[in-house]
Amino acid sequence: MAHPPLIDVHSHVVPQELPADPTGGAIGAWPSVVCEACRTKAQVFMGKRPFREIDDRSWSPTRRIEDMDQDGVAAQALSPMPELLSYWLDPNPALELARHVNGAIGQMVAARPDRFFGLGTVPLQDPELAAKEARDLKTRFGLTGVEVGSNVAGAYLGDVRFDPFFAVCEAEGLAIFVHSLHPLQARDLSRHPMLVPFAGFTVDTGLCAASLIMDGVLERFPGLRIGFSHGGGVLAPLLHRMEFGWGSTNGFEGKLPQSPKAYARRFFYDSLVYDEAYLEHLATQIAPGQICLGTDYPYLIQQPDPRAFIEGGAARTGVSDTIWNDAARRFLGVSETASAGREVNHG
Amino acid sequence: MAHPPLIDVHSHVVPQELPADPTGGAIGAWPSVVCEACRTKAQVFMGKRPFREIDDRSWSPTRRIEDMDQDGVAAQALSPMPELLSYWLDPNPALELARHVNGAIGQMVAARPDRFFGLGTVPLQDPELAAKEARDLKTRFGLTGVEVGSNVAGAYLGDVRFDPFFAVCEAEGLAIFVHSLHPLQARDLSRHPMLVPFAGFTVDTGLCAASLIMDGVLERFPGLRIGFSHGGGVLAPLLHRMEFGWGSTNGFEGKLPQSPKAYARRFFYDSLVYDEAYLEHLATQIAPGQICLGTDYPYLIQQPDPRAFIEGGAARTGVSDTIWNDAARRFLGVSETASAGREVNHG
Repeated sequence: MAHPPLIDVHSHVVPQELPADPTGGAIGAWPSVVCEACRTKAQVFMGKRPFREIDDRSWSPTRRIEDMDQDGVAAQALSPMPELLSYWLDPNPALELARHVNGAIGQMVAARPDRFFGLGTVPLQDPELAAKEARDLKTRFGLTGVEVGSNVAGAYLGDVRFDPFFAVCEAEGLAIFVHSLHPLQARDLSRHPMLVPFAGFTVDTGLCAASLIMDGVLERFPGLRIGFSHGGGVLAPLLHRMEFGWGSTNGFEGKLPQSPKAYARRFFYDSLVYDEAYLEHLATQIAPGQICLGTDYPYLIQQPDPRAFIEGGAARTGVSDTIWNDAARRFLGVSETASAGREVNHG
Repeated sequence: MAHPPLIDVHSHVVPQELPADPTGGAIGAWPSVVCEACRTKAQVFMGKRPFREIDDRSWSPTRRIEDMDQDGVAAQALSPMPELLSYWLDPNPALELARHVNGAIGQMVAARPDRFFGLGTVPLQDPELAAKEARDLKTRFGLTGVEVGSNVAGAYLGDVRFDPFFAVCEAEGLAIFVHSLHPLQARDLSRHPMLVPFAGFTVDTGLCAASLIMDGVLERFPGLRIGFSHGGGVLAPLLHRMEFGWGSTNGFEGKLPQSPKAYARRFFYDSLVYDEAYLEHLATQIAPGQICLGTDYPYLIQQPDPRAFIEGGAARTGVSDTIWNDAARRFLGVSETASAGREVNHG
């Protein structure tokens, strides 16, 4: 069945090759990729620790496009596998790594500008350095935005220390894609290890979004375009309570000029919430018109058959019209005449 | 307008008098109540730290019943102000305090058995001691259940250390009301203090519920009746991801016999979610028939006009029939012929 062009804002990349640890092996968490048979099996290491098995879907435009054609995805926004954000490294080697990753993503976009948009990374453990680097992301690498972890070495993004970075993103029109990373809750869940991937990631994303709202980031930088993976995690139930609190306390004693829900409506959210009724809640109650398709391609807990998911969800009010590509275009800041994502693809 | 009898499962008590610190002042967080003009103004201290301003609504059956009549509430389940759970004290003084609080709640129930049910407290920092004490809660104090913090000194409730307590609750038919307390996330939110009450409490409740599910407590104790304040906090979005993970991993490699949503449907949830559409999501997608009215009376962020809230929500599928009193009776384990909550009250 024909459908509008579908843009997936949530898909990850690991370059097939990563630079060597510039200190010659002294950095414990420096990432590397070791190939057995690369098409089907490679291993990402963080230092000496095996981190994740991947295959050429992580770097091959050709292989990705085969899958996209099958899934009816016209264009993907490519972002680094979150572990590559490397906020735990020293800023200078982190910058070197970030430039390599940004270059690899930029090359994939350059190879198939009709099918890919690029989201890069900057070393936010040093906000001034990150701000400086963000200035060149578009021109140097051909990227449309930047992926950011839900917390940066323990700090949620509402912290004023990140203002220099947000100022550049606003000025340059960079899309900011927030993805859960090293959830702070993991520390409390050592006796409940299954809760880390299934609950911790979702919580950390929600707390990050709540921080951006309550700490006034959208008030200071009204032009920012921020999108959240996994539908903003647990933001919706937090937001209802925050909204009630705002109304009961005269706007938190005047500290927050607009209501939490007014800010939340300006964010974008991907659709990776694993439940159509919850997606409807987001699309109708939290952020009408702001839900983008996000699949988490090519990882394990990815959205299967995004078209069927959307078309199921499209039976419900408010999800259907903008989720195919309109919300994604507004989030990424690309026009309908941009080269990628114009074609309808039939699986 | 006439409506079915309304039972509020979420209302708190502070006794007007608390016992003196048995060590003569050595315990830093021992609670006390200092009256200025008790009817209108009293102060709860935790040790020397002023904790909360209260008034006689916290202990007076007469005063509460005036408000209940105005709000159309037939019966309240009385539970301790969560800070009184005192899991941070040594077990023996904590037991002494718990018995005093349980006695005070028991007296309120005895004074007006037509309007109150009682939920007590046990010193869960010592699970064996808590289990022993739980055996007598019904007969000694006339209570129908126990309030429990979302974490106990840093441990979520799915931890096997709490099994002895759950075994007694199951055997005695005690209702367990889980309320957020000292959210573990607070530690990460020191630069975002507003997020602690508005996001941290909600997150901690959700992680506690997720822990009870994923750690198999309902599998080990299928007869437990557990209810969560604030609609289970952030459980709903966590649950959707957990359910997808369960389905993608052969039940977490066989570790969890039933799906997370199957367990979640057996919990009870109060209605204090500050949003009718989110309440509908809980009532239709998470736990049909298991939503109870909860107001958080008599505190600041309480549900105003519960009848109007329910009657608004009742226009939506699945919320209306059981929320008035049926779910609360099943949660509390009290029959329709129980003395409290039989009358319709008109405001």
